[in-house]
Amino acid sequence: MVHTRDEDSPVRVAVLPDSFKGSAHATDVAGAMAHGAERALSGRPGGVHIDTLPFADGGEGTLDALLGAWGTPVLTVETTDAIGRPVTARYGLSPDRTRGVVEAAEANGLPTVSDVPLRPRTATTRGIGPLVEALLDAGVEEILLCIGGSATTDGGTGLLTALGARFLDADGAELPDGGGSLTDLHSIDLDGLDPRARSVRWRIACDVTNPLVGERGAAAVFGPQKGAGDEDVRVLDAGLDRLADVLRHTTGTDVRGHEGMGAAGGLPAPLTAVLDAELVPGSRLVAETLDAERLLAEADLVITGEGRFDHQSLDGKVVDAVRRMTPDHVPVLVVAGSVAVGPEELESSGVTAALSIAEGPSTLEGLQGDALPAIIRTTYNGCRLLDHSLAPSRSKEPSP
Amino acid sequence: MVHTRDEDSPVRVAVLPDSFKGSAHATDVAGAMAHGAERALSGRPGGVHIDTLPFADGGEGTLDALLGAWGTPVLTVETTDAIGRPVTARYGLSPDRTRGVVEAAEANGLPTVSDVPLRPRTATTRGIGPLVEALLDAGVEEILLCIGGSATTDGGTGLLTALGARFLDADGAELPDGGGSLTDLHSIDLDGLDPRARSVRWRIACDVTNPLVGERGAAAVFGPQKGAGDEDVRVLDAGLDRLADVLRHTTGTDVRGHEGMGAAGGLPAPLTAVLDAELVPGSRLVAETLDAERLLAEADLVITGEGRFDHQSLDGKVVDAVRRMTPDHVPVLVVAGSVAVGPEELESSGVTAALSIAEGPSTLEGLQGDALPAIIRTTYNGCRLLDHSLAPSRSKEPSP
Repeated sequence: MVHTRDEDSPVRVAVLPDSFKGSAHATDVAGAMAHGAERALSGRPGGVHIDTLPFADGGEGTLDALLGAWGTPVLTVETTDAIGRPVTARYGLSPDRTRGVVEAAEANGLPTVSDVPLRPRTATTRGIGPLVEALLDAGVEEILLCIGGSATTDGGTGLLTALGARFLDADGAELPDGGGSLTDLHSIDLDGLDPRARSVRWRIACDVTNPLVGERGAAAVFGPQKGAGDEDVRVLDAGLDRLADVLRHTTGTDVRGHEGMGAAGGLPAPLTAVLDAELVPGSRLVAETLDAERLLAEADLVITGEGRFDHQSLDGKVVDAVRRMTPDHVPVLVVAGSVAVGPEELESSGVTAALSIAEGPSTLEGLQGDALPAIIRTTYNGCRLLDHSLAPSRSKEPSP
Repeated sequence: MVHTRDEDSPVRVAVLPDSFKGSAHATDVAGAMAHGAERALSGRPGGVHIDTLPFADGGEGTLDALLGAWGTPVLTVETTDAIGRPVTARYGLSPDRTRGVVEAAEANGLPTVSDVPLRPRTATTRGIGPLVEALLDAGVEEILLCIGGSATTDGGTGLLTALGARFLDADGAELPDGGGSLTDLHSIDLDGLDPRARSVRWRIACDVTNPLVGERGAAAVFGPQKGAGDEDVRVLDAGLDRLADVLRHTTGTDVRGHEGMGAAGGLPAPLTAVLDAELVPGSRLVAETLDAERLLAEADLVITGEGRFDHQSLDGKVVDAVRRMTPDHVPVLVVAGSVAVGPEELESSGVTAALSIAEGPSTLEGLQGDALPAIIRTTYNGCRLLDHSLAPSRSKEPSP
C-alpha cells in the first residue's frame, strides 16, 4: 500500500538507529539524529514529523533500546554471575507490564567474569533465574530473552535449575553447576518447575544457526572463546549430547534437529524442549515488539545507523533489518561512526547512502567521545541533500 | 535567467574543486568527484552530463589548476631563487597561447629557501624575470601572475630589473638586490625595459588588501614571517616608502593610496605604477580565466571542495567563489578532507551540505594518502542523497 500525502503535509521521518557501541545508547543516537533531521527539514512547506525508535538486533544494547522506546525504567535484581559471585542485573517491563525483557549476559556474560580465569566446565546460567523470576512476579505474559555474549556452556541447565527443575545423575543426586557434569545426566525432574515459567510465552533473540552438538555445535564453535581447551570441548559436547538425549526422553522433543540450539552454550535447548520457547532473529524480535513496520510503512525518509557500518551490517543487523522493512521507494540514510561499505555493496543492500560522523582526522576515542554532536551534524548534512531534489520540477523552481 | 530542461535531458553536474593541499591536485580531485557523481547519477532517466573544472584561488595550486583545465603541459625555465641560487621554475600557457600563467613563488617563494637562514633585506624577485620573459617570448597577450608565498620584500624591483629597468642611487649606480637598499633609491631608468612587458595585460591574483607601507604595510605585517627583525622592518618599510616616492615621480602614480600593494613584499607596486597591472581577487581571476560562470549557470548540481573546509573557506576561497557564482536554486555539495563548519555557518554560506572524506578514525597522513578513492565514495554518497527527492511526487512513485 502506498499512502498519499498532500504537498503541504509534513515530511515523515522515521529514525531507528542501533546503539553506537562503546559510545552512545540507541536512545541518545536517535535523539541526535532527530535533532539533525529537524534542523535540516523544518523549513519545508509542510514541516517535518519525526518518530524515533531506538533499535537493536537482540545483542548488547537491546534492553536499553526497548526501555528507551517504551519509556520505562531500568529495573534491577540481585543475582549471581557465571561463576557464582553476586551481581546486580538489569531487566525491564513494557508500559502495560505484559512483556518483560532480559539480557541473559547481565548474569552469565563474559565481560562480568573477565577479571578471572575462565571456567568453561563450571560456568552456569543459574544467575539468569532471578531475572526470570522477577518478570514472572511482575505478571508478564511474554519473556523476551536476549542471549548473546555468554560465558557458559551448560545447556541452560543452570537457569532451569533456578526455576525449580532438578538435573539428576544415575543415583538421583543433583548434578553440580556447569556443562562439565552433564555427561553424568540421567534424568530431569520437572515437578518443582515454577508453573508460571510454563505458561508465559518465551521468545529468544537468536541470530545463530548452530546446532546444539557436533562440529558446528555450542562447545566446538563457541567453547574456545569461553576458555575451553580441546578436552573441555570434548567433555562439553558429550554433555550437551547427553542433555539432548534426556530432554528427548523427558519431553519428546529432540532439540538436536533444531537450528540455533547451539547459541549461548545451549541455553535455548531446555527452553525449547520444556518451555516451548521460540527462537526469533534478534532484529525481527525487536521490530515486532516495537511495531517498527507500521512506522516504516508511513515514512518518507528513514534514518538508521550504528557504530560501524560494514558488510556484517548487511547480514541481519539493525541496518539490514530496517532496510528490509522499509518500502523500496523510501530513501534510507545510514549515519555511522565508521563506514566501510563501497558503492557496490551499498547498492545491493538498498541503502541510499552511508555517511560517517568523522569530519576529518580523528582517533577512535575522539570519535566516540564526541559522537552525539557529530551525529547531529552528519544527519543534518545528509537531510539537507535529501531536501534538494535534482528533479526537473525543482531545478527551475524560482521561475515565474 | 532560468534555463529549461526536459524530463529526459541529462542532469548537468559542474565539478569545480580546489586542490586538497598536501594530498591531491585540483585536476585529480575533480576527476575523482566526477567519478563518484557519475556512478551515483548515471541511472537517471536522462543520464548525467559532468563538466570538470579544476579550480584555485590564486594561491598555491593555481598553475596546476589552470593547466589542468586548459589541458596544456607544464613548461619550465631555468632561473634563480630569492637568494640567487639556480632553480627550475614552472609556468604555463593557454591552448591558444594568448595567456600565460606564473606562480611567482616558483622563483621567489619561501619554501625554496627554507633550507637556509632567511635574508629579508637582500631577498629578491629577480628570478621571476625569466618566467615573464618566457611568456613574452611565447607571444602572450595577458600575464596572470600569482604572487602568494613570497620570501621577498624588495617592492618588485628585482623583477623590474630583470625586465630591463634600472634602480639607481644618487650617484647613478645600480642598487644591489633586495629591499634593504631601497632607502638609497634616487631614480628609476626605464629606457631598457622590455617593451613587450608594457604592451601585455598584467593581471595579479591578490586577496590581500594591505597597503605598501605603514603599520599594515608589506614590511610590518609580512616581514617577520620572512625573517625580518624590528630593525629590518624599519629599514624595509622606509625603503618601500622611498620606492613609492620615486615611482610617483617617475610615473605620476602614487601606489601608497592603492589597496593590495603590500602583497608579496610590495611586488604589485611597480607593476601597477609602471606596467598598469590590475589586481584581481584570486578566485575571480581564475573564474574569469576559465569562464566558470557560464558553466555554473547551466548546472543542476555543483560539486566543489578543498582539503579543509572551515570558516576561512567562506571568505574568498574557492568554495566561497563557486557558491557566489552559482545560481541560488542550484544545490552546492562540498566534499572536503575535513569539515569544520556547523549548520549555522553552512546555511548562511548558501552551501547545501559539506561532507568529509573521512570514513572513520584516521590520521591526517592516512586521509591524505588515500584521498582520491575516498573522494569518489563521499561524492557518490552525497549524489545518491541528492538523487532521492523528498518531494511528494517521488515519495509515492511506484503507485499505479
